[in-house]
Amino acid sequence: MSLIDRAQCEALDAKDPLAFARDRFEVPDGMVYLDGNSLGALPKQTPARLDAVIREQWGQDLITGWNKHGWVALPRRLGATLAKLIGAEADEVVVCDSTSLNVFKLLSAALSLQPTRKVILSDTGNFPTDLYMAQGLAQLLGQGHRLELVAPDDVITRLDADVAVVMLTEIDYRTGRKHDMAAINARAKAAGVLTLWDLAHSAGALPVDLNGTGADFAIGCGYKYLNGGPGAPAFLFVARRWLEATQQPLFGWFGHAAPFAFETAYQPKAGIDRFLVGTPPVLSMAALECGLATFDGIDMALLREKSLALGDLMIKLVTQECGGLGLTLASPTEGKARGSQVSYAHAEGYAVMQALISHRVIGDFRAPDLMRFGFTPLYVRYQDIWDAVATLKSVLVTAEWQKPAFRQRAAVT
Amino acid sequence: MSLIDRAQCEALDAKDPLAFARDRFEVPDGMVYLDGNSLGALPKQTPARLDAVIREQWGQDLITGWNKHGWVALPRRLGATLAKLIGAEADEVVVCDSTSLNVFKLLSAALSLQPTRKVILSDTGNFPTDLYMAQGLAQLLGQGHRLELVAPDDVITRLDADVAVVMLTEIDYRTGRKHDMAAINARAKAAGVLTLWDLAHSAGALPVDLNGTGADFAIGCGYKYLNGGPGAPAFLFVARRWLEATQQPLFGWFGHAAPFAFETAYQPKAGIDRFLVGTPPVLSMAALECGLATFDGIDMALLREKSLALGDLMIKLVTQECGGLGLTLASPTEGKARGSQVSYAHAEGYAVMQALISHRVIGDFRAPDLMRFGFTPLYVRYQDIWDAVATLKSVLVTAEWQKPAFRQRAAVT
Repeated sequence: MSLIDRAQCEALDAKDPLAFARDRFEVPDGMVYLDGNSLGALPKQTPARLDAVIREQWGQDLITGWNKHGWVALPRRLGATLAKLIGAEADEVVVCDSTSLNVFKLLSAALSLQPTRKVILSDTGNFPTDLYMAQGLAQLLGQGHRLELVAPDDVITRLDADVAVVMLTEIDYRTGRKHDMAAINARAKAAGVLTLWDLAHSAGALPVDLNGTGADFAIGCGYKYLNGGPGAPAFLFVARRWLEATQQPLFGWFGHAAPFAFETAYQPKAGIDRFLVGTPPVLSMAALECGLATFDGIDMALLREKSLALGDLMIKLVTQECGGLGLTLASPTEGKARGSQVSYAHAEGYAVMQALISHRVIGDFRAPDLMRFGFTPLYVRYQDIWDAVATLKSVLVTAEWQKPAFRQRAAVT
Repeated sequence: MSLIDRAQCEALDAKDPLAFARDRFEVPDGMVYLDGNSLGALPKQTPARLDAVIREQWGQDLITGWNKHGWVALPRRLGATLAKLIGAEADEVVVCDSTSLNVFKLLSAALSLQPTRKVILSDTGNFPTDLYMAQGLAQLLGQGHRLELVAPDDVITRLDADVAVVMLTEIDYRTGRKHDMAAINARAKAAGVLTLWDLAHSAGALPVDLNGTGADFAIGCGYKYLNGGPGAPAFLFVARRWLEATQQPLFGWFGHAAPFAFETAYQPKAGIDRFLVGTPPVLSMAALECGLATFDGIDMALLREKSLALGDLMIKLVTQECGGLGLTLASPTEGKARGSQVSYAHAEGYAVMQALISHRVIGDFRAPDLMRFGFTPLYVRYQDIWDAVATLKSVLVTAEWQKPAFRQRAAVT
């Protein structure tokens, strides 16, 4: 097998049908950004759009902006746009709050539909905040609910009649391992178990088909692959069949049937709006709308193809260039079992990642020893993968990571 | 008594010790903005600050911004600034989520401190979302808690041994009526009742002394008098004596003792941080920081003095100019019983307000018949009050409000 060189990577870029999309982003010069799975890059249209929302809509129109500029409709408008990326209908998705809070709402809704079942099933690969929210809710309810964690591969066989809801992150945030959503939804349905999917590393990263696979509930993140900016609002999905039957306990005025009637008693609005709580954060919503617009006209099948090709290339190049340098692949080799990232374990992973970052190759680190490299096909190029691996090799060969500065832990890792 | 004319109002502006602060805001030319109690005006520094956060911090530094630009510390940094406006210590206040969600957290914390008491006491003047959140929590808990509403004046005598917590908005959003926080806190303490104050119309509107008056818990809004922009993050206060004894049920990763250790079990962080839930919305936080900066060096006693003077002037001018035109004062005449707004009832209040808005005199309407005029002393002038009343008189005298366009209800009123 012949070796891959940078010229071959450049050739892949030259014929990449999604290459045009990189121009929708401000990617800093000389930076290889492989952390769009943690914080998406800045869309080019965001600064001007935010400036207009701030100076013109807020600054000039002030309170009248709620009607004049449709601020009230933002949660639904963004939800309708997002729905297309995740196989949902426009009236099943709303943008609001944080993923953590949306877990709380939907988990509570799911449990109330299953009064006799007490197990919330999840897996050991789920993102901790989802687990924490489940713990908080179970404790608050005081009705004997318990969160049970099994290994990811054991989820499907654990879908029994005592399980109220199975709550899973489709793509493992550490390893990129991908659950088979269709298989789990089918088995869950047969066992009378409701499904709650966390799409934090799925929405915008690969095609998602919530309705096609029969999902009940889902939540997800606006600041990763959706490019909404740091701490962007999250979203939630409720399958239409549950919209009128469910309620969530965070009774806020934006979920009220008539918020501006200022009635004393809570009355949920019809449909997905009842999952709203407080006043929508207009500036953050406007930024997320720009993030969602980066997917305009993007063929998600092509995006998935490129995402896997980038990951496959990374794996091949690391094998070719970094053999014997202490790296262990922590992600599935096979593309269909993987999301849009590749992770490597290294005993000094934290310091190695800091060294990479110092050379403007940006990935991130997840304890205890994982280096994550995320592939956002709209702006990551094949040549970036070459450059990342070349830098990784150099850092490892020269043991540059041993510098004390790289071993000093920061607040956020 | 001699009549007041516009020249006298201009003279008041000329000697106003807070006149300089208007220059901190973009107030649209020719607009009389009396709705800062609903959405504060745009601080001049906000557009450039947001542009820098977006283009430089997010655009150039991407994920490293969490450490490099202190994004992680925003909830506490803003909380510490805000604490000075409300008589709290820096470690008692945090900026996060929406007021609705913060009500849920603190009400839950309060109830857990009072296991044998089942009444959540509030008044009929409270803002509905606070009441809704209490209803949702009580229903979720299923422990027989009930929300009891009494008339504002009856609150103090209802503080008995069955009341777990009294939850009040200090300033009535409709009438501007002000509760006596010190008296209620004292009586509540004597009766073993915890206090939860909603400062939505207080923070930045008048001096608040949470610790001086012995308040237990408080929440408030970032987009009204604090000028944080539409849907800005809210805040919450927990008196230091409760910080370690209380927990809230929305267990999110930003409230975890070690969020980046990614542990499976929730463990609350020490102190006020345990009231955080999800990832902080950095763009909205940056805007609110600019809003808080508009209070730099402002003497809150002077601000209160001007606020009441503006309100007194409005009442006098309406009496002088609009007698017999169908207006009924709905706010306390006496300044010390009033917040920073004056409201008038009018049978056609909605249409009258729409007519005023068409002449760029901006207040708002609250069903069934109240027109609200809010006074934000940092940018409202005495001459604005004159112009507002002159316009009001003209709208009423000519019955301009009868135009069909003014009677058509919009989504947000």
